[in-house]
Amino acid sequence: MPHADSPTLALACELMARPSVTPDDAGCLELLAGRLRAAGFGCERIDTGGVSNLWARRGKAQPVLCFAGHTDVVPPGPAAAWKTPPFEPTIIDGMLHGRGAADMKTSLAAFVTAIERFVAAHPDHDGSIALLLTSDEEGIATHGTVKVVEALAARGERLDYCIVGEPTSVHALGDMIKNGRRGSLSGTLRVKGRQGHVAYPQLARNPIHAFAPALAELAAIEWDQGNEFFPPTTWQVSNIHAGTGANNVIPGVCEVMFNFRFGSASSADGLKARTHEVLDRHGLDYEIDWHLSGKPFITGRGKLVAALSGAIADTLGIETELSTTGGTSDGRFIADICAEVVEFGPVNATIHQVDERIAVSAIEPLSQVYERTLRALLAA
Amino acid sequence: MPHADSPTLALACELMARPSVTPDDAGCLELLAGRLRAAGFGCERIDTGGVSNLWARRGKAQPVLCFAGHTDVVPPGPAAAWKTPPFEPTIIDGMLHGRGAADMKTSLAAFVTAIERFVAAHPDHDGSIALLLTSDEEGIATHGTVKVVEALAARGERLDYCIVGEPTSVHALGDMIKNGRRGSLSGTLRVKGRQGHVAYPQLARNPIHAFAPALAELAAIEWDQGNEFFPPTTWQVSNIHAGTGANNVIPGVCEVMFNFRFGSASSADGLKARTHEVLDRHGLDYEIDWHLSGKPFITGRGKLVAALSGAIADTLGIETELSTTGGTSDGRFIADICAEVVEFGPVNATIHQVDERIAVSAIEPLSQVYERTLRALLAA
Ligand SMILES: [Zn+2]
Ligand SMILES: [Zn+2]
Repeated sequence: MPHADSPTLALACELMARPSVTPDDAGCLELLAGRLRAAGFGCERIDTGGVSNLWARRGKAQPVLCFAGHTDVVPPGPAAAWKTPPFEPTIIDGMLHGRGAADMKTSLAAFVTAIERFVAAHPDHDGSIALLLTSDEEGIATHGTVKVVEALAARGERLDYCIVGEPTSVHALGDMIKNGRRGSLSGTLRVKGRQGHVAYPQLARNPIHAFAPALAELAAIEWDQGNEFFPPTTWQVSNIHAGTGANNVIPGVCEVMFNFRFGSASSADGLKARTHEVLDRHGLDYEIDWHLSGKPFITGRGKLVAALSGAIADTLGIETELSTTGGTSDGRFIADICAEVVEFGPVNATIHQVDERIAVSAIEPLSQVYERTLRALLAA
Repeated sequence: MPHADSPTLALACELMARPSVTPDDAGCLELLAGRLRAAGFGCERIDTGGVSNLWARRGKAQPVLCFAGHTDVVPPGPAAAWKTPPFEPTIIDGMLHGRGAADMKTSLAAFVTAIERFVAAHPDHDGSIALLLTSDEEGIATHGTVKVVEALAARGERLDYCIVGEPTSVHALGDMIKNGRRGSLSGTLRVKGRQGHVAYPQLARNPIHAFAPALAELAAIEWDQGNEFFPPTTWQVSNIHAGTGANNVIPGVCEVMFNFRFGSASSADGLKARTHEVLDRHGLDYEIDWHLSGKPFITGRGKLVAALSGAIADTLGIETELSTTGGTSDGRFIADICAEVVEFGPVNATIHQVDERIAVSAIEPLSQVYERTLRALLAA
């Protein structure tokens, strides 16, 4: 076995050698399930829609501490652009290179080695340990974590604490935990007018002109001021399209895509209502397709944050920062069945890029942080 | 010869049988030149860029009365959609059907028969009679009338009166003359921002949001109030495009196409300056490509309008209306070398459509209107 001195590095390399581009698991889940069964876990595959998912649990009692993550990785792009082959994990100058090094195969390896040491030392731990793993987080994510959460909810299985292993550290391992995420609410708006010739505007109704004052107003609104957990809600138009290229035709419709990123100071329904109020007040003829891709979730300073930040301080000697910035993650789904959800993992500077990498010196400490958190919450 | 009782109908049918889809002249100009030479005209081809143009003149003195028009027609589309084959002129229920019947082969035929009668009766007429004919009016029109006008201007040839044979009548032959046209000024605007992720708007600059207040202001401006000749100037956005379809990306640029239709109450330079003033005041980073596709021209109630409206009254018994509405025409080019330019021709209800047609009963009267105008201006 290579890297016999670092079982977490060894397992990370085994996972990284599998080209598990979304939604292909490439055998990662079976590799992990084999290790978990050996550690006394019951393992259950919840596969759906071509996506492989694993639910593993050790113990029947509450509280349940769940580790969550994904085996899939984003495509590496042209291999020639990489210093090292993307699916041949290679150490150069103390950095482990390869697709998934930071997002998030090292976290998965660290979950498993942390659990292995913990259950060896505490075979009769309190509560239960669980893993919720999917091969569809980087894709459209409709058949991954959300489906496992639905299955668990359907049979009344509840989690108490969940650590998602996403790469949340910014400069050094441990410097940031995500203790929540903003919600994401999208709208596809069609403002309707009447097509015509630019020489006869009185016979047409230009939807671009009609929409302009409402657009200016929406762009200027302060939706909320944020709160102790979240920054102020933002509204951004990502796309606007009207016209077919001809410059003598007034278009009949203007299509707009926009997105809210919102904290707990606003609600999805409230933002929808305020948007409609503006559009209605401007007398527009329109329709909107709304899509709520994630509600905000927040985990205050309870037992999980205390255990994890204590483990970081003990292992790494630094005081971690709580943050709710950034995009969405599978934490939004897990929060439906789990009161305390946080995300914590490696430095994210190189994720989704060529030459994705992680400091080898941070790999065993990551496993130790997870193990110390287990001890703080479940040691008998 | 068919239609021996109506020489204008006969010549119109000869022209319509030639499928002269832009820029193909299909021999129409030679047919017309043959008739004109027989009537004492000197004929000169000014062909350029694949476009056939004819300049014909009888006489050397001023004033010059010029008839202008085009032999090209817009494509007929699928012949099966027509009641009659588009290039086989056919009379049904008193209507002559075929592509070009109204726009504008009947006008060309009427020019020629009017001239033939007039020079037979007045071989030593005052001034000169001219024809300016092109096979590229319906297309991009860069090698048609504009090139002939440039050639005439280069050698100092000036026109005094010009009748463009475009179909200007609305309900019945003679009910409307166009005594001018609005100008057309187009702009292609690129508002620049900084691309980014919608979750981090503070790191991006959304060009849609930046442009919105300026757009609302431009759409609300009263550019002028019009004057005795022209309706108020209008500004219309024909196209707006930003974003690549992804709804999590703030676009880096917003592209906008707009168009002014303006009368003599505003100038192209003035409209440009006011547009820049608004965009600058809103602090936008932008560039505009301007394109002036036609200056406005206007012909007041002078000798030409008097002669033509008198001819209409005498021939048709109706009082014609002067108008400057509608799109642009080749009149905009001719106005550069001719003080009085008007447009007059058949009813335009079916132009550019399937089953284009003209009332047979209006064909000889159209020729008589042109002949009476010749008499009023050039009879010795
Ligand atoms: Zn990830
Ligand atoms: Zn025409």
